[in-house]
Amino acid sequence: MRDGSVTTGEAMERLKLLPYEDLGFAKIDHHRALRRGFPEAVFGAAKTPEEIAAIVARIAALGQNVLVTRASVEAHARVAETHPAAVFHAAARCLTLRVKEPEALPGTIAVVTAGTSDIPVAEEAAVTAEIHGATVARVYDVGVAGLHRLLDQAPLLRTADVVLVVAGMEGALPSVVGGLVDAPVVAVPTSVGYGASFHGLAALLAMLNSCSSGVAVVNIDNGFGAASLACLMLRKSARRS
Amino acid sequence: MRDGSVTTGEAMERLKLLPYEDLGFAKIDHHRALRRGFPEAVFGAAKTPEEIAAIVARIAALGQNVLVTRASVEAHARVAETHPAAVFHAAARCLTLRVKEPEALPGTIAVVTAGTSDIPVAEEAAVTAEIHGATVARVYDVGVAGLHRLLDQAPLLRTADVVLVVAGMEGALPSVVGGLVDAPVVAVPTSVGYGASFHGLAALLAMLNSCSSGVAVVNIDNGFGAASLACLMLRKSARRS
Amino acid sequence: MRDGSVTTGEAMERLKLLPYEDLGFAKIDHHRALRRGFPEAVFGAAKTPEEIAAIVARIAALGQNVLVTRASVEAHARVAETHPAAVFHAAARCLTLRVKEPEALPGTIAVVTAGTSDIPVAEEAAVTAEIHGATVARVYDVGVAGLHRLLDQAPLLRTADVVLVVAGMEGALPSVVGGLVDAPVVAVPTSVGYGASFHGLAALLAMLNSCSSGVAVVNIDNGFGAASLACLMLRKSARRS
Amino acid sequence: MRDGSVTTGEAMERLKLLPYEDLGFAKIDHHRALRRGFPEAVFGAAKTPEEIAAIVARIAALGQNVLVTRASVEAHARVAETHPAAVFHAAARCLTLRVKEPEALPGTIAVVTAGTSDIPVAEEAAVTAEIHGATVARVYDVGVAGLHRLLDQAPLLRTADVVLVVAGMEGALPSVVGGLVDAPVVAVPTSVGYGASFHGLAALLAMLNSCSSGVAVVNIDNGFGAASLACLMLRKSARRS
Amino acid sequence: MRDGSVTTGEAMERLKLLPYEDLGFAKIDHHRALRRGFPEAVFGAAKTPEEIAAIVARIAALGQNVLVTRASVEAHARVAETHPAAVFHAAARCLTLRVKEPEALPGTIAVVTAGTSDIPVAEEAAVTAEIHGATVARVYDVGVAGLHRLLDQAPLLRTADVVLVVAGMEGALPSVVGGLVDAPVVAVPTSVGYGASFHGLAALLAMLNSCSSGVAVVNIDNGFGAASLACLMLRKSARRS
Amino acid sequence: MRDGSVTTGEAMERLKLLPYEDLGFAKIDHHRALRRGFPEAVFGAAKTPEEIAAIVARIAALGQNVLVTRASVEAHARVAETHPAAVFHAAARCLTLRVKEPEALPGTIAVVTAGTSDIPVAEEAAVTAEIHGATVARVYDVGVAGLHRLLDQAPLLRTADVVLVVAGMEGALPSVVGGLVDAPVVAVPTSVGYGASFHGLAALLAMLNSCSSGVAVVNIDNGFGAASLACLMLRKSARRS
Amino acid sequence: MRDGSVTTGEAMERLKLLPYEDLGFAKIDHHRALRRGFPEAVFGAAKTPEEIAAIVARIAALGQNVLVTRASVEAHARVAETHPAAVFHAAARCLTLRVKEPEALPGTIAVVTAGTSDIPVAEEAAVTAEIHGATVARVYDVGVAGLHRLLDQAPLLRTADVVLVVAGMEGALPSVVGGLVDAPVVAVPTSVGYGASFHGLAALLAMLNSCSSGVAVVNIDNGFGAASLACLMLRKSARRS
Amino acid sequence: MRDGSVTTGEAMERLKLLPYEDLGFAKIDHHRALRRGFPEAVFGAAKTPEEIAAIVARIAALGQNVLVTRASVEAHARVAETHPAAVFHAAARCLTLRVKEPEALPGTIAVVTAGTSDIPVAEEAAVTAEIHGATVARVYDVGVAGLHRLLDQAPLLRTADVVLVVAGMEGALPSVVGGLVDAPVVAVPTSVGYGASFHGLAALLAMLNSCSSGVAVVNIDNGFGAASLACLMLRKSARRS
Repeated sequence: MRDGSVTTGEAMERLKLLPYEDLGFAKIDHHRALRRGFPEAVFGAAKTPEEIAAIVARIAALGQNVLVTRASVEAHARVAETHPAAVFHAAARCLTLRVKEPEALPGTIAVVTAGTSDIPVAEEAAVTAEIHGATVARVYDVGVAGLHRLLDQAPLLRTADVVLVVAGMEGALPSVVGGLVDAPVVAVPTSVGYGASFHGLAALLAMLNSCSSGVAVVNIDNGFGAASLACLMLRKSARRS
Repeated sequence: MRDGSVTTGEAMERLKLLPYEDLGFAKIDHHRALRRGFPEAVFGAAKTPEEIAAIVARIAALGQNVLVTRASVEAHARVAETHPAAVFHAAARCLTLRVKEPEALPGTIAVVTAGTSDIPVAEEAAVTAEIHGATVARVYDVGVAGLHRLLDQAPLLRTADVVLVVAGMEGALPSVVGGLVDAPVVAVPTSVGYGASFHGLAALLAMLNSCSSGVAVVNIDNGFGAASLACLMLRKSARRS
Repeated sequence: MRDGSVTTGEAMERLKLLPYEDLGFAKIDHHRALRRGFPEAVFGAAKTPEEIAAIVARIAALGQNVLVTRASVEAHARVAETHPAAVFHAAARCLTLRVKEPEALPGTIAVVTAGTSDIPVAEEAAVTAEIHGATVARVYDVGVAGLHRLLDQAPLLRTADVVLVVAGMEGALPSVVGGLVDAPVVAVPTSVGYGASFHGLAALLAMLNSCSSGVAVVNIDNGFGAASLACLMLRKSARRS
Repeated sequence: MRDGSVTTGEAMERLKLLPYEDLGFAKIDHHRALRRGFPEAVFGAAKTPEEIAAIVARIAALGQNVLVTRASVEAHARVAETHPAAVFHAAARCLTLRVKEPEALPGTIAVVTAGTSDIPVAEEAAVTAEIHGATVARVYDVGVAGLHRLLDQAPLLRTADVVLVVAGMEGALPSVVGGLVDAPVVAVPTSVGYGASFHGLAALLAMLNSCSSGVAVVNIDNGFGAASLACLMLRKSARRS
Repeated sequence: MRDGSVTTGEAMERLKLLPYEDLGFAKIDHHRALRRGFPEAVFGAAKTPEEIAAIVARIAALGQNVLVTRASVEAHARVAETHPAAVFHAAARCLTLRVKEPEALPGTIAVVTAGTSDIPVAEEAAVTAEIHGATVARVYDVGVAGLHRLLDQAPLLRTADVVLVVAGMEGALPSVVGGLVDAPVVAVPTSVGYGASFHGLAALLAMLNSCSSGVAVVNIDNGFGAASLACLMLRKSARRS
Repeated sequence: MRDGSVTTGEAMERLKLLPYEDLGFAKIDHHRALRRGFPEAVFGAAKTPEEIAAIVARIAALGQNVLVTRASVEAHARVAETHPAAVFHAAARCLTLRVKEPEALPGTIAVVTAGTSDIPVAEEAAVTAEIHGATVARVYDVGVAGLHRLLDQAPLLRTADVVLVVAGMEGALPSVVGGLVDAPVVAVPTSVGYGASFHGLAALLAMLNSCSSGVAVVNIDNGFGAASLACLMLRKSARRS
Repeated sequence: MRDGSVTTGEAMERLKLLPYEDLGFAKIDHHRALRRGFPEAVFGAAKTPEEIAAIVARIAALGQNVLVTRASVEAHARVAETHPAAVFHAAARCLTLRVKEPEALPGTIAVVTAGTSDIPVAEEAAVTAEIHGATVARVYDVGVAGLHRLLDQAPLLRTADVVLVVAGMEGALPSVVGGLVDAPVVAVPTSVGYGASFHGLAALLAMLNSCSSGVAVVNIDNGFGAASLACLMLRKSARRS
Repeated sequence: MRDGSVTTGEAMERLKLLPYEDLGFAKIDHHRALRRGFPEAVFGAAKTPEEIAAIVARIAALGQNVLVTRASVEAHARVAETHPAAVFHAAARCLTLRVKEPEALPGTIAVVTAGTSDIPVAEEAAVTAEIHGATVARVYDVGVAGLHRLLDQAPLLRTADVVLVVAGMEGALPSVVGGLVDAPVVAVPTSVGYGASFHGLAALLAMLNSCSSGVAVVNIDNGFGAASLACLMLRKSARRS
């Protein structure tokens, strides 16, 4: 092409040939996102606003959507200088840039929290799911000490195709939710708590020992990972059906 | 008294003078049981049937009821040779000998378990409470993965003055029960589970981090301790009212 | 009502209909406090002064007393702008707002500390108990290395209906107190110590293994939880008698 | 029906009415299995052959398939006396009794192990999946120290709808498999190893920290749980499509 | 000497020349015992009766006293065949053979236990101290839950030059004793307990965090080590004075 | 006395009558220091300069020497305003105020460190020992990776009556020193290290498992406690001889 | 070849084509051993004598030497029925079968232990090294509490090309050896010890924190792994030189 | 020499006489570096720029190369005032000063990382190796979730004489690399990760349990230690050949 622009088809071909790309301070592996048709995800925690901006720009130039987790408002400001369409999700501490509409995934992912302090992790999951093309139902602050709140939401939870349950402290909610629904449950322990919560260890152990049989667990505070897994589930069934 | 027998009043006086008594292989502290009007309790785990029989005989001779926890059927057989009234509570792994009717405590202690494997610890608590003079309501196998079972029992639980909640694995039940009742909840983690339950550690940590505010915790598998505490609560209020 | 004001009776009815209320950044569950007749409690640690002020205002408007634990002096300043009756308990790191006199609970709660560094946690317990309507006896700095101080207080401790024992480092005090009194003992490990105290773990484990049988344990630094439990004990016996 | 036999339809109705059933030594909750259309599962570890036989008989009488995990050859012998169709899966330490053909689930579950010592846990997963109606592809002994074995199986793994990865020691295989497939990966740490494996803790922690984003984890040695979750995934998508 | 016998002086010279001696299955380091004038100590746990007999014989032939800790009654029987003067201390699980009177150490070592289950470790300490030439005062079963027993013994404890405090469970006794005496306290945690005692870890941590400043700690169940240290203290002061 | 000053004899009498004294923010227990003839020790870590100054002033007024550990230069400045004789020991992070010459203890305490980073803890021990009246020999930076340095100091170490060995990282030095001397060894693990030192846990565990039999251990970074224990040893033998 | 026998060259070619071989209960990966020219190694712990015999026979038939670690005397008896040349190394718990002379590796591997209880792990290392063709110098029972023994061996240790240091308890020996030699040190923690050794954890942590810079660590009790690594070092340098 | 300068030969002699040198705030042990012919290494973490400058100056004056790890840009600025040839390696957080060309080591050290966040530790290793005279091949960001990147580098890795593998999170890379190469592998866990990585513990445990037999492990984030060990390997073989 003479004008230097890149069509989506060409970009995809180019990426398939390039297993990864070196920006000096980071290598971007386009391979997996491309293969799965999912956005590129960047872990923003230890990167400077400048590094994040450079990575985002490079991915966007190839026509891919971008998700930056653990992003700061400074990083967003820097990205927005060149990409004003970039959105900062404050509650989720995430930045997204959509250069195209993500392919819609079938079904619904319910994201449930035990308390209000678990919401940042839940929002990371929700934003991750949405940029992957999923429909998300948020059900927050329904911890087990007040069952009436949770039971009110049971009909909604039963319609979900995957349920992400985000809880700190004693991490009891996934077991209760697992008993109410027939969908797979992905439990996300959070570091919410103090003392003998040991930064999420108590919740993590509780979830691994869930007496409900359809529950699996991801790392403490890993909303992104839970949502990624949920999207793979939806995608897989979409392709099969 | 001429015949050498000992009246209860005299025995109590005698015991108050003796802070403890030395049987050679063990010292018995009659002081506390007497003061509280509770039975003598013996931890049977590391004692031989002969030692247990000797201790039981000594206590009974002083007109006190006896509770032996972590007792074996062999210990019971040996005790029963001289004290045929001794009862072995197989499910609780406890032996009791009642030489007098315990003074009745007011109110009811509910003993609740998450699963059937938690029953031995719960029975240790129930037998302990009963020999202390308490009324016990057993509510077993109502774990959080099947809320309908637990909710069926909620009206009964709400009538209890203290609720002992016995659970292994993820230890979630005390938090849920704590949200359903207004009574104090004593949580007893059990060593039921495998892998990341780490012999009851997961349940213990979960219970310590309970989001329900009226919950306290005792050692793993310590049914005796939970019931002793519950009886002190009932006794205290009995004396005050 | 024309003037928009709300009588207490009406507020209670309204709350009973509303299981919870959504302030956007937090849901308030009035259900439990109402049912128990206790004040609303707010965990202030991760909330901004503005959020705390909004929650306090909403609860006060409904005629309920409020307790904010882990509160800052800034939060108090913000609350006091609109509610000058709000009190900041510096030693306890708590804020209270009394809009009515709490219903008095029978009996006395003794709050005992091993050292002076345990006082903030003890004060959190004491302030919590007082806003619940309890009478509190403070017995501070009576650690086991100087038994004479503790034994001096034994007569006072024996009059208490519940004893809260707050200790860091080796956490030995609850066992000793448990041997001196016939009341239930609630042990509160604190994070006071260094090195192998592992932020309160040493004290926590010690308390769980107490050789005194009437001792239960709450989370590290959880003065609020211990006092809540104690108040439930007193309330239960008040209702029964 | 005159002859006392029970049709499937009637049995289901009856079970729906009975939330659970009490056999004295155990309560069976037919509710969940029925609702999901899955077999009843019994954890055989702490039950006697007689207890297992009684439970199996009761479930079979209601026309439900049965799976007993952690079963012994003695338990099988006892069950086979009355139910000769019961099958003992020695490698899986499982017993199954099929009284009807399970409803087939769509898609394939790949069960992968790192070493030969992980096979018992993998077989527990495979047998569980099969009695739930799933098609299973076994890929054993493809640990990361010999990548050629694993890469040989990559095309097969890519056809699976869910991949269960069973590994002890360093637990590295799920991360590698997660990079090769686009399906959800459920990681099962095993207690295989010695020394610093700490009975599966090393593998568990590694899997929770997987750098591959589509990986969730179940308890150590919990093949049953992983397969149950996988079947829920397949079922959910089957119902949606 | 003509008859092949060895005088003590010669033996000592010979040993000083030999830094150690090789019996094939074990090397004996006579160096340290000789230098300190203390008996040879052998850790019997993993040795066969035959090996123990051979080592004991070799040491005795050189005119040294011997102490075998963690010894079995079988080992004693085997040793007694050739050395009938060997004594088996059943409560201490120790074997001693005195071929000469140990040089008396000045002062007294008090050995204190919290409970009766701690006695084996205490006896290991006491037997160790005695074969080193020390005078031992045993004060057993004076745990902190019954302070009256302990306070009865306070005058005796105050006369000791070193106090060894042996306790399992919550390990509180050393702190209390440390507050009663002016002598150095060596704390010995024991593995007595269950659940959250974690095989002595709870007691160990408590003792390391003792609020009494004159307390040091040895390994769990290490009665031998505590007594060895105490004897060094006494010896050192003996030599200085 | 007319002028309000207090003679030492009177002060001692007064203190013996007062078991402790309440300064509002802290209670001072003069009992123990008096009884032992040692200085008052104050843990300065969580106290303000003003609080420290007030405590120091009160103790000095009674004619007692004072030691403040974990003190800051600010605290010293504040104390020096009124007590210019107060000395700040920067390397030890300690403040001392001598109002009289301490009674000399017999013998020598060697304070040994593995590295230069361990010096602050060692200096806390040395300063503590000196204000107690002990003679201290400092032997620093003689870690086991360079045995020649340590062996050069062996003759000096062998003259000490107690040896305090301060080490972080792998904590190996106490075992080696224990093999070189016949004096009691008090091991002080430090938090020096990173990664798998886990803030001193590695050194602590190593020291507890020392293969040298005359070694006891105090808490991580507890130089004060080790020196206090050493002084008790010296004092005890001084009184006996 | 007519007689069916297999020349070494042919066997190697055949193996290179076969990446692995399936015996039903185990797959043997000849690839790596072949490529490295090393013997096949089999972890015997969880295998029956029959399985071990079958694997050994298969490997021997291909002309490869075999090493079975964690082997039993029963396994040896079973192997010896068909391969009388098989040797059982009792101290090492290893079985070897040499069908050809291993290619000699240059240099020497010193295997050092702290105590006699560490010898089984050391022998596993030594036997492993020897069947790989290495020359081994055994230096046993030279723990740090008796430096004279170790220093006696320093000249020998300095001639080694790699030093494997095997130690339990406090794990101090590798740091000391690392300071004496200029060769790489591979530290092997053992599970020798009790109480706070936590089955080798104390030694493991100590070794990881070694202040000697040339030390790396393998798993607890992993003598085989340490020796394999040492042989790779020697082999690599042999090929380069 | 009249001019005060020091020839290399003289300096070496002088150093051999001086086992160590005291700068007041630190002792420098020239012994080992000299003996090995390696540069002096200084751990810069807890030292001030002034201290680092003084140490560097002293070492340089003796004609030795210097490596400061965990150095700051401020320390470099201070050193560069007097030694403008000092180089700051920002990515490695290291400072080097070469006063002579290091003696070249034979062979190549490959330094491999799983992710970009592991690069600082890897660079510490690489810079350390280079100042020791080694040739380094950097292979960064080749984590196991994208095997194609790693396999692309396999031919390069196979040419290395030692491979250092630096990885955080699940620490899986050393096992995979160990299966691809025949060289010794030194695994360096990093503290990269969050939640259940527990500051590098997950990676550390995984690496200790590696199923690849030629892998040893150093402390978390200890790039310096790994490189030092690798250089000893190369040096040893250089001297032998």
